[in-house]
Amino acid sequence: MAVYTEVSDDELEDFAAEYDIGQVVSCKGIAEGVENTNYLLQTDQGNYILTLYEKRVNPEELPFFLGLMEHLAAHGLACPTPIHGRDGKALRTLCGRPAAIVSFLKGMWSRRITLGHCAELGPAMATMHLAGADFPLTRANNLSVAGWRPLFESIRPRAAEIKSDLAQSIEDELDYLEAHWPRTLPVGLIHADLFPDNVFFLADKAAGVDRMSGFIDFYFACTDVLAYDIAICLNAWCFEEDGAFNATKARLMLNGYRRVRPLSADELDALPLLARGAAMRFLLTRSYDWLHTPPGAMVKRKDPMEYYRKLRFHQGVTGPGQYGIE
Amino acid sequence: MAVYTEVSDDELEDFAAEYDIGQVVSCKGIAEGVENTNYLLQTDQGNYILTLYEKRVNPEELPFFLGLMEHLAAHGLACPTPIHGRDGKALRTLCGRPAAIVSFLKGMWSRRITLGHCAELGPAMATMHLAGADFPLTRANNLSVAGWRPLFESIRPRAAEIKSDLAQSIEDELDYLEAHWPRTLPVGLIHADLFPDNVFFLADKAAGVDRMSGFIDFYFACTDVLAYDIAICLNAWCFEEDGAFNATKARLMLNGYRRVRPLSADELDALPLLARGAAMRFLLTRSYDWLHTPPGAMVKRKDPMEYYRKLRFHQGVTGPGQYGIE
Repeated sequence: MAVYTEVSDDELEDFAAEYDIGQVVSCKGIAEGVENTNYLLQTDQGNYILTLYEKRVNPEELPFFLGLMEHLAAHGLACPTPIHGRDGKALRTLCGRPAAIVSFLKGMWSRRITLGHCAELGPAMATMHLAGADFPLTRANNLSVAGWRPLFESIRPRAAEIKSDLAQSIEDELDYLEAHWPRTLPVGLIHADLFPDNVFFLADKAAGVDRMSGFIDFYFACTDVLAYDIAICLNAWCFEEDGAFNATKARLMLNGYRRVRPLSADELDALPLLARGAAMRFLLTRSYDWLHTPPGAMVKRKDPMEYYRKLRFHQGVTGPGQYGIE
Repeated sequence: MAVYTEVSDDELEDFAAEYDIGQVVSCKGIAEGVENTNYLLQTDQGNYILTLYEKRVNPEELPFFLGLMEHLAAHGLACPTPIHGRDGKALRTLCGRPAAIVSFLKGMWSRRITLGHCAELGPAMATMHLAGADFPLTRANNLSVAGWRPLFESIRPRAAEIKSDLAQSIEDELDYLEAHWPRTLPVGLIHADLFPDNVFFLADKAAGVDRMSGFIDFYFACTDVLAYDIAICLNAWCFEEDGAFNATKARLMLNGYRRVRPLSADELDALPLLARGAAMRFLLTRSYDWLHTPPGAMVKRKDPMEYYRKLRFHQGVTGPGQYGIE
């Protein structure tokens, strides 16, 4: 639930006049996303998304994010594309905030993940990884292994509010992850937040299936181990509501990925460890948000324990075969 | 800021299949309105608004509201029109709530009211009043004079939190309003909440002006004194941010109205009293909301004192001439 910054009609008119997008006929704040302010902007030429970047986004990193979306779209990945103004600039200022207009991506994210969704996700993720190979900018992943212990230290004093022995469990796991984290796997551009709400699908009525229509929200994208993106998706897409791991979903996702970008033996072998790391990352950030969200706030808190249980599952995985890999 | 009920893609597909509106390509929650859940629904045929009615709307009154929008649209007022399903029904159930799809109204509400906006508002309001004349359903205004004292009693114990002598001021004014409230003025269908955020405009670039594109949000509409709708607009449209009353705005609005629907001498003479009543209504509801909104809630509280000051202004008005009427 968002819309932090209200844009007046006058300010919007002036802003839109910098672009060749036609005349504004509607502009409605979208109640999605918690990082930025998003408007669905309609002109007599089409639909766009207007984003005002709020304080959780570092303005210095915006050229990376916008450049990446443009690069990926130009290389065949369906995703929002920044619109350039008449002066050539895609990033300008609105209501005192950095702001950009991007193309509108059709589709909806799926609340109920099917095998078919996972089969579509895999090749699209691989396509993104290949498309990102020659993107010239880089951005460190500040939520990877080096960032986890400082985050843990910030929540440690209150971790018992979530689970009595949570701090000890996290500390033991961090010791293990830091000692074993892979340093030689292929690195490249990853999305790093490829949860179901960032992947759109459109129903193909004739075929009776959903087709992936694109990825959104690249504001965690960074340069990191490519297989770590897969590990995030193993966590985000392949568990059922009751906590059970669905190896069929994992197999369909992984096999779809490998058809587009083959995975080396090292990458496959590292998947259980990377999946533990991904579970740790979301356990930590969710714990932080859980402890810092006032109970009365109108924001739905995401249960950190979901990722504690996923971490426990991956700790018991002895090889990639348990993810459905033949 | 809204979206109380999240609709899954599966539920939406099934719901939309009841209508001849084409295939859904996007559905985004709108961060506007605080009463209901609103989605901007896009299909391959066009744009629509999907509304789920939350608990503040009485389901038994929905046929009145939906029927009214349909009636007004058929009689020349630009406003959202309910879409009927293949079974002929405009009102059905989604996620356990009453729900309807209405046509999409282009335009934006103006954050900065100009003389031109007021000149457009007047005739449109009069058109609505004329169009409503033969609408067969009626609905009592539960926020008119009979409803104010019970509302006052509910806030009286804490009124001093807003202003030390607020309770006494309100009580004196209620005594006066109840004794003098007009009983013989023309009655009909009124919008009853015609604030700037419920009136859309579109820029006419060629003419360099904004044109009214329609009214929205008829969920306070009711059967009441027609001139009371005007009195609400005198409050909502004709004061500047610094509290000054802008008689030019009032004159343009009133004269525009009278060109379409002439006002009788009785109606004109009653305007100061009706304007006091309208100020009282919003002073009371804003006071109630102010006292019942937790300080930490992510809802912007509207200052009740704005309407205390507007009430004070109208108390000093001795005749309609002060509203710019010649």
